[in-house]
Amino acid sequence: MQPKMEVGVLGATGMVGQHFVKFLNGHPWFDLKWVGASDRSSGKAYRDATSWRLEGAMPAGVAGLKVEDSKPGNAPKLVFSAMDASVATEIERAFAEAGHIVVSNSRNHRMEPDVPLLVPEVNPDHLKSIPLQQKNRGWKGQIATNPNCSTVVLTLALGAIKQFGINRTVVTTMQAISGAGYPGVASMDINANVIPFIGNEEEKMETETQKILGDFVDGAFRPHPMKVSAHCNRVPVVDGHTETVSVEFSNKVTAADLINAFNSYRSVPQERNLPSAPKQPVIYMEEPNRPQPRRDVERERGMAVFVGRLRPCPVFDWKFICLGHNTVRGAAGAAVLNAELMISEGLFD
Amino acid sequence: MQPKMEVGVLGATGMVGQHFVKFLNGHPWFDLKWVGASDRSSGKAYRDATSWRLEGAMPAGVAGLKVEDSKPGNAPKLVFSAMDASVATEIERAFAEAGHIVVSNSRNHRMEPDVPLLVPEVNPDHLKSIPLQQKNRGWKGQIATNPNCSTVVLTLALGAIKQFGINRTVVTTMQAISGAGYPGVASMDINANVIPFIGNEEEKMETETQKILGDFVDGAFRPHPMKVSAHCNRVPVVDGHTETVSVEFSNKVTAADLINAFNSYRSVPQERNLPSAPKQPVIYMEEPNRPQPRRDVERERGMAVFVGRLRPCPVFDWKFICLGHNTVRGAAGAAVLNAELMISEGLFD
Amino acid sequence: MQPKMEVGVLGATGMVGQHFVKFLNGHPWFDLKWVGASDRSSGKAYRDATSWRLEGAMPAGVAGLKVEDSKPGNAPKLVFSAMDASVATEIERAFAEAGHIVVSNSRNHRMEPDVPLLVPEVNPDHLKSIPLQQKNRGWKGQIATNPNCSTVVLTLALGAIKQFGINRTVVTTMQAISGAGYPGVASMDINANVIPFIGNEEEKMETETQKILGDFVDGAFRPHPMKVSAHCNRVPVVDGHTETVSVEFSNKVTAADLINAFNSYRSVPQERNLPSAPKQPVIYMEEPNRPQPRRDVERERGMAVFVGRLRPCPVFDWKFICLGHNTVRGAAGAAVLNAELMISEGLFD
Amino acid sequence: MQPKMEVGVLGATGMVGQHFVKFLNGHPWFDLKWVGASDRSSGKAYRDATSWRLEGAMPAGVAGLKVEDSKPGNAPKLVFSAMDASVATEIERAFAEAGHIVVSNSRNHRMEPDVPLLVPEVNPDHLKSIPLQQKNRGWKGQIATNPNCSTVVLTLALGAIKQFGINRTVVTTMQAISGAGYPGVASMDINANVIPFIGNEEEKMETETQKILGDFVDGAFRPHPMKVSAHCNRVPVVDGHTETVSVEFSNKVTAADLINAFNSYRSVPQERNLPSAPKQPVIYMEEPNRPQPRRDVERERGMAVFVGRLRPCPVFDWKFICLGHNTVRGAAGAAVLNAELMISEGLFD
Repeated sequence: MQPKMEVGVLGATGMVGQHFVKFLNGHPWFDLKWVGASDRSSGKAYRDATSWRLEGAMPAGVAGLKVEDSKPGNAPKLVFSAMDASVATEIERAFAEAGHIVVSNSRNHRMEPDVPLLVPEVNPDHLKSIPLQQKNRGWKGQIATNPNCSTVVLTLALGAIKQFGINRTVVTTMQAISGAGYPGVASMDINANVIPFIGNEEEKMETETQKILGDFVDGAFRPHPMKVSAHCNRVPVVDGHTETVSVEFSNKVTAADLINAFNSYRSVPQERNLPSAPKQPVIYMEEPNRPQPRRDVERERGMAVFVGRLRPCPVFDWKFICLGHNTVRGAAGAAVLNAELMISEGLFD
Repeated sequence: MQPKMEVGVLGATGMVGQHFVKFLNGHPWFDLKWVGASDRSSGKAYRDATSWRLEGAMPAGVAGLKVEDSKPGNAPKLVFSAMDASVATEIERAFAEAGHIVVSNSRNHRMEPDVPLLVPEVNPDHLKSIPLQQKNRGWKGQIATNPNCSTVVLTLALGAIKQFGINRTVVTTMQAISGAGYPGVASMDINANVIPFIGNEEEKMETETQKILGDFVDGAFRPHPMKVSAHCNRVPVVDGHTETVSVEFSNKVTAADLINAFNSYRSVPQERNLPSAPKQPVIYMEEPNRPQPRRDVERERGMAVFVGRLRPCPVFDWKFICLGHNTVRGAAGAAVLNAELMISEGLFD
Repeated sequence: MQPKMEVGVLGATGMVGQHFVKFLNGHPWFDLKWVGASDRSSGKAYRDATSWRLEGAMPAGVAGLKVEDSKPGNAPKLVFSAMDASVATEIERAFAEAGHIVVSNSRNHRMEPDVPLLVPEVNPDHLKSIPLQQKNRGWKGQIATNPNCSTVVLTLALGAIKQFGINRTVVTTMQAISGAGYPGVASMDINANVIPFIGNEEEKMETETQKILGDFVDGAFRPHPMKVSAHCNRVPVVDGHTETVSVEFSNKVTAADLINAFNSYRSVPQERNLPSAPKQPVIYMEEPNRPQPRRDVERERGMAVFVGRLRPCPVFDWKFICLGHNTVRGAAGAAVLNAELMISEGLFD
Repeated sequence: MQPKMEVGVLGATGMVGQHFVKFLNGHPWFDLKWVGASDRSSGKAYRDATSWRLEGAMPAGVAGLKVEDSKPGNAPKLVFSAMDASVATEIERAFAEAGHIVVSNSRNHRMEPDVPLLVPEVNPDHLKSIPLQQKNRGWKGQIATNPNCSTVVLTLALGAIKQFGINRTVVTTMQAISGAGYPGVASMDINANVIPFIGNEEEKMETETQKILGDFVDGAFRPHPMKVSAHCNRVPVVDGHTETVSVEFSNKVTAADLINAFNSYRSVPQERNLPSAPKQPVIYMEEPNRPQPRRDVERERGMAVFVGRLRPCPVFDWKFICLGHNTVRGAAGAAVLNAELMISEGLFD
């Protein structure tokens, strides 16, 4: 048995950072030994610098770590970034420049022309953009990113059926409050209410989906030509983004084709048996009223996407519901699976 | 000042019936003097037969009425029907046959080829089908219906912009729990959850919308040719159905055209100043995150539809949010406005 | 008909300030003509300085008012204070010193030995402390306060039955999120949860209750000797604080005595027919499961307290439930009723 | 390693029955091989007879079991009863008479003078009443019961500090919706609301607490003389009953005494290392706003009770908050731990 690789988390005291700390707890490959945060927290023990807001207790092994400045210095080679978007650009670049492998959940570098935006089952080959990135920027390190939480759910579902040719997709999200961090959404805004707006979320879903489902060829990302229209809403649910999806296909496809494609979808993370990879990344539920966020989101350790209610769409071809765990598969778990994929590619050597 | 017209409510003890009782309280034209219900309740005082579940107290004038059998006999000429679908067909027909004007919220007769399915602003001319109905069935009375609660919201919004030519509409609803009656949705099902399924709701929205926006010509309903695809969901909101809508138009149309069309939409109910008609049936809200059900649904006595967030749709032409009060504009208020329209047409004479 | 008195609101742009603006809209005696706020807002129109968060639209007459600095200068004689506790002490004193009548909802002066803490039905005679206050402080103006929102509910219920001699009270509150202002409680904290802690709330309930139910004699407040123990909790309810109460009486008292005392409670505000006074300040509900916040809190314009479920207490004598509207009877409405009482006493002349 | 003991569940298709099925899944001593239900379900496979409503999937090993009539016949010796109270009396007696060991969650036999009402940490010695029961009733079998869900939470907390002498307790509960089964509480009743009433719950808490904390001496239960007053409320929380508690002690006791007593409380289930026993049955949380149901209820597999906010009570001596999992420690887990205790006593031999 190999020794574990030491890893760090940038922005470890915030909500996304806490999700990283929780998700990495007991990880078979990674050993969280370094936590970085803003000046305000640095020098304190993690337990003192952090208002732990997740269910269950703070992992004991992390509680005593000293919080470091968000500077390369003594950080491990692999760092996960949960930095706030307002500061992530500079900090992540500084780490990559200093030779670190930055696996980021922040939105800042996602759409850059030499940064992979990964959903490991869907576009593992986008990692081919890393050498270009290193050459362009003169970095020994690298930055890889995962998509917005609502995009992950959609792209895993579409990734499973992309083979049938997708022309157009209309998606409406009903997103959990945990997607907005802490304090995030005021209870006066969301209690017994719907907020039909999440800043920049629709634009992110529309453009990120095209990049992820597209190709990296001849040294450039070629977005998928499908048109995507997103309607993003916040609903009073704790965890789990639910999405209604209508899809127009370019090829003829039956319900049986689609359900089979969802359930049999396997890709590189499954083939390589990566530790955070769900055995079955997309699970079709037969019950007429599932998936549901409160009842289904924690299944498969939050790493699978659940699809249901496949039925003909009078406007396009087919419509269905999908659901995924926004803070796991849509954030911390997404980045950790990215790192596992990168290791399995030998990108860290 | 004319004396008020005596009216009755069929199914008065149930949830929809209670909404009728509440909405009719203080009505300037109608005086609720007759309440009908199932055998189990008949003979009791309304206050004793009814578990009043609405906010505020039971109207004093109704509390003492004796609950009658759901049979024509001594009922007033005009009866509103809040009968459960399992029994509405027979009972409503019996009343119409006996010469009553039945203004029904039940789904049973909505899609019949000689029964008007009314949204008074959108298709008041569908009342022209009544003589056909009377002739077909040999009735002196008549039945008119209002649509499903989620359909009313959509058709008022689309009615205001129908002039630009609508080819296709994809709609996702986030529907309030009050739409399911009482006890309706179990709290174990909906607390902090989304239920992505409401039985038959999508089919109703798709077909009812086509009938309402269509024409009655040459003695027959000609459905509007637009294609409608509905995704219906229940969310933990008390009152108010919120709907995301993407629309493809056959004509070129600008945002200003649409907003102007929403805000300036006036029709027969407004022209005739019907007592339950909202002054402005569709209200466009400029705020970036409105309308919201908890904050907006009670405005305009629950009789207007609120639209917001008009923006280009990458898949079709335009997309927006709309909101309406499901138990008022989508049920009791809808039927009462129907009756007001019918009176203003002289149909009761 | 007399002209209305011009009034102002200090802290008008915050949540409590907005509740004052809403409550004063259409008031028969008061005309809101002056709104004060922090430097950041002053000079702007109220509509531009304020993120209006209440249900319904911002009152048109106030939207165009220019926001003023929170300094006496040109303010009307009567100002309501919705100032944040962090600044209320100095600002309220400055206004009182400058001759203004400050009717405050802030906690800062509540427990001072020469400031009345008023529930107009319960202790209108505490206004006798105003001359002492003016003498002590050399003010031409004056400050009067209303209690914490949870205290108002309890003291109105206890005020109605105080005559039977109260020795001890144990109260547990289930408080609405609107009591915490905006953004107030994070949805991640309260969604489908209970927070068993509200900072300083228990201390306020315990001490304020004693002051309110006590006497002002010989130039000093003499707190009521009853012992009060409060357990304060936040629950996911929008408006309305629900409180369970166990009471030990010094005299023998029957259920009929207590229910009669609740329902027949009338005091100075009712006798003088003050415009914001509820006709019946305490309403006993006979239903076995009432009052309930969502169903009952808006009754009587939010100015009454609802009591229910009176039953023997195995530990003390009697126990019951009470409910009141925290932002109306517990805040803006409380202060406005205080001002009405003060006018009716001739204190403004 | 011993073979597991085969067990059955009566009323296995209902909500409490499902909790038994879930809790017994993977149990080291018990193997669920028999499921009984009403005539309507008998003969079907469990998966077909049951609308599975719990989070996660139905345990595979149970899904295929044939549902049996609720009659002794071929049932295993040990049966857990999740029967509805309307039928539990007769059925449980029939099983006990036929020689079965009935470990029941139903309320029917709890207060009988020869039936133990067990909280294994608190009153394991009450099992001494079993021989009396068998003699009284001529049974070879036996019935043991666990308390109401809200009582378990209170009695574990009080059990830990009973040594200091408890005279009086006032408790207010804020109970989760899962405590009411399915469909249980209508969402129209509890969404954004508090229901200040749960039928018979207060009486159960008051009398059951006295029996549990009392003694079984000289062949009879002698209830604890403490007075208990309960106020029971339903709040919109999924799982976990939160309770505010004020306690009067007969002895002088400090906060340190109490916190130490909570945290060091160990009893027979811990000494015998019973498989469902929490290592630490009562856990005192130091955070100022904990425990909270959504964040803490799943800790320790739902089998511990969490206490917090110990502070002086102005009316009695001390007050605090406690929380427990109503469907685990308050129902299925409680009964399973009872059975483990009974086995460890040799009562099944």
